[in-house]
Amino acid sequence: MALIVQKYGGTSVGDVDRIRNVANRVIKKYQAGNDLVVVLSAMAGVTDQLINLAHQVAESPDERELDVLLATGEQTTVSLLAMMFNSMGFPAVSFLGFQAELLTNEAHGRARIQEIHVDRIRKALDQKKIVTVAGFQGWTRSGNITTLGRGGSDTSAVALAAALKADSCEIYTDVDGVYTTDPTICSKARKLKKISYDEMLEMASLGAKVLQIRSVEFAKKFNVPIHVRSSFNEEEGTMVIREEKDMEKVLVSGIAYDKNQARITLTKVPDRPGIAAKIFTPMAQAGIEVDMIIQNTRAGGLTDLTFTVATPDYKKALDIQQNLADEIGAEGVYSDENIAKVSIIGVGMRSHAGVAAKMFSVLSKENINITMISTSEIKVSCVIEEKYTELAIRVLHDAFELDKA
Amino acid sequence: MALIVQKYGGTSVGDVDRIRNVANRVIKKYQAGNDLVVVLSAMAGVTDQLINLAHQVAESPDERELDVLLATGEQTTVSLLAMMFNSMGFPAVSFLGFQAELLTNEAHGRARIQEIHVDRIRKALDQKKIVTVAGFQGWTRSGNITTLGRGGSDTSAVALAAALKADSCEIYTDVDGVYTTDPTICSKARKLKKISYDEMLEMASLGAKVLQIRSVEFAKKFNVPIHVRSSFNEEEGTMVIREEKDMEKVLVSGIAYDKNQARITLTKVPDRPGIAAKIFTPMAQAGIEVDMIIQNTRAGGLTDLTFTVATPDYKKALDIQQNLADEIGAEGVYSDENIAKVSIIGVGMRSHAGVAAKMFSVLSKENINITMISTSEIKVSCVIEEKYTELAIRVLHDAFELDKA
Repeated sequence: MALIVQKYGGTSVGDVDRIRNVANRVIKKYQAGNDLVVVLSAMAGVTDQLINLAHQVAESPDERELDVLLATGEQTTVSLLAMMFNSMGFPAVSFLGFQAELLTNEAHGRARIQEIHVDRIRKALDQKKIVTVAGFQGWTRSGNITTLGRGGSDTSAVALAAALKADSCEIYTDVDGVYTTDPTICSKARKLKKISYDEMLEMASLGAKVLQIRSVEFAKKFNVPIHVRSSFNEEEGTMVIREEKDMEKVLVSGIAYDKNQARITLTKVPDRPGIAAKIFTPMAQAGIEVDMIIQNTRAGGLTDLTFTVATPDYKKALDIQQNLADEIGAEGVYSDENIAKVSIIGVGMRSHAGVAAKMFSVLSKENINITMISTSEIKVSCVIEEKYTELAIRVLHDAFELDKA
Repeated sequence: MALIVQKYGGTSVGDVDRIRNVANRVIKKYQAGNDLVVVLSAMAGVTDQLINLAHQVAESPDERELDVLLATGEQTTVSLLAMMFNSMGFPAVSFLGFQAELLTNEAHGRARIQEIHVDRIRKALDQKKIVTVAGFQGWTRSGNITTLGRGGSDTSAVALAAALKADSCEIYTDVDGVYTTDPTICSKARKLKKISYDEMLEMASLGAKVLQIRSVEFAKKFNVPIHVRSSFNEEEGTMVIREEKDMEKVLVSGIAYDKNQARITLTKVPDRPGIAAKIFTPMAQAGIEVDMIIQNTRAGGLTDLTFTVATPDYKKALDIQQNLADEIGAEGVYSDENIAKVSIIGVGMRSHAGVAAKMFSVLSKENINITMISTSEIKVSCVIEEKYTELAIRVLHDAFELDKA
């Protein structure tokens, strides 16, 4: 007998038939004698509909009130699922964020979980009830409803699993696990049996959207093993777990990519203290997140400075820099929207030299020009021309033999 | 400067434009220096949609979970209205049942308000915020969401007005007040300037659906004057207030009717103790509400017993009685679906004799046969053939000069 936390995403509860499918899955484990806590997202599309409704009412909707509105999405699915269990003869009870006492800070729309009081859930489990919990939502000490941001239900599930000291945390989604790379680009992509938290964090932040980043951070912090799997079949998915010794034997675990990038270069910037602050402070003030930054020193006290931003921020960032160029004495501002970032990820890199060199040589053999490079302990990222993305992924996948377990 | 509680029904918040209309109305009073608490229903039709959704999931949905689901309707409208205020530059905050601390008993789907802690609302008003409150919903001491039953938002508003000691309670609806009778039947129907709680209770329970009965009971108990008016124009509506001395000068204040009635008669029932219990206990067990009951004693220890039920319960009631007839030794069971109840209501009846006699004679002059009569201190009801309903209303309206103020 185990305590299992399961989370089902929006497509898994997209209509009444799919909710029934979820119910049947849960009941199978319940009948085997387990305690079940089921965290749900809103039905697919509902959160976007609600945001749209809010924007019909207000150009920039009040954040506290938007959270009240958005919270109805999960409120609907958890009550429906609990009704279904009860009507099938299995006692069940739903808990909203405030009832599950999932306490967060006051940051509406992107709240962080601070504490969970699980007494009420435990009591329901002791009464042999199946517990459904509204994901994505929490509440503050001052009694306001908050939401955790996109994909927040993953974090709700992991946090509940940690607080309840659950035996397992299963995240059901519409993909059947974490792959070595995007299977729609590389037919040889292979589903990973396991991946470390750190690798998963790099994979997620680099555009392989399977789990919300924060849920992985949470899982790492509290050492909650996550089983990512599909709600549409019975196959085992991928275990996201603490790093194990044998993981280091593999050089590269996966390849991520991000086409949603644009590059801006300022040339011949006077190389003096404070210049970088001058360039990046207005970006931060405008809420623009800068990803990679590279500075090349030239002769004569001049330097070239290049950075990347997400495509939606591109125009705004370019405006800022063009207005700034004169003030800081830069020669010119150049930009390119047609770029992509391709990254190889693997904890094995820590103990193996030459991984980056191999990546560069593989790309160069295909005449793919690398315009920016950034590295971390377990990752090497290269910015290339966008049109080479698929090719780069395929040749790297082959070169690092990712199709082999 | 006054504290005003306003309540807007489902059609008044039916879409974004109508919510804007509500916002403008509220702001006018707010700008005049008043404190505003705005109680809302769900958008018209939404509660029915949610009930329908629940029935797709479960034949008889769990009552606790159904309340969680239904509560999303008002959660949506109060957050949208608060967003709209904020975007127009007026500080506003929404409160759900649990945040407004509207405590009820545990009777899901038909919960009764027991206590309201208004500290949080008062604090928001002190901060000059417009407060929107989700009608129809409350919560229990054990932390469960409850709903108050159809029309419950009226009760929420009146209860809040009582708890806040508000200066006025305005119920905005899609009719512009309480009329002497149904204006679609009688063109001479006149809007009443005021009506007493007791008269309103009789009007409401007899089928003139303007206010939920319980809200009027609440208003009477705590002496909250209610102003019933339209959200679609600026006209004064009807004040529902404590009985005043001059109200007694009017014999009859209004005429109500109910076509949703059916009659069942058991003939030649042995007239012995316990027989009525035998007849009505199975009705109560089946959840059937019996309205009027009349018993006529015949010679030879026999009696005829007639009662009315609401049309939707008619078939079930008839089945029960037909099965029972042999057991209790009744001669036969007769029934009639084509009946209506027409009632004259007025606190003036208390101090004037002959009102009932006048009603009977007015109906008899038109050859309208009366098959059942029931009276209270401030009401006389007659059951007649359904086809005469409109005629009866018109001749009574004329006879009691209801078109004259």
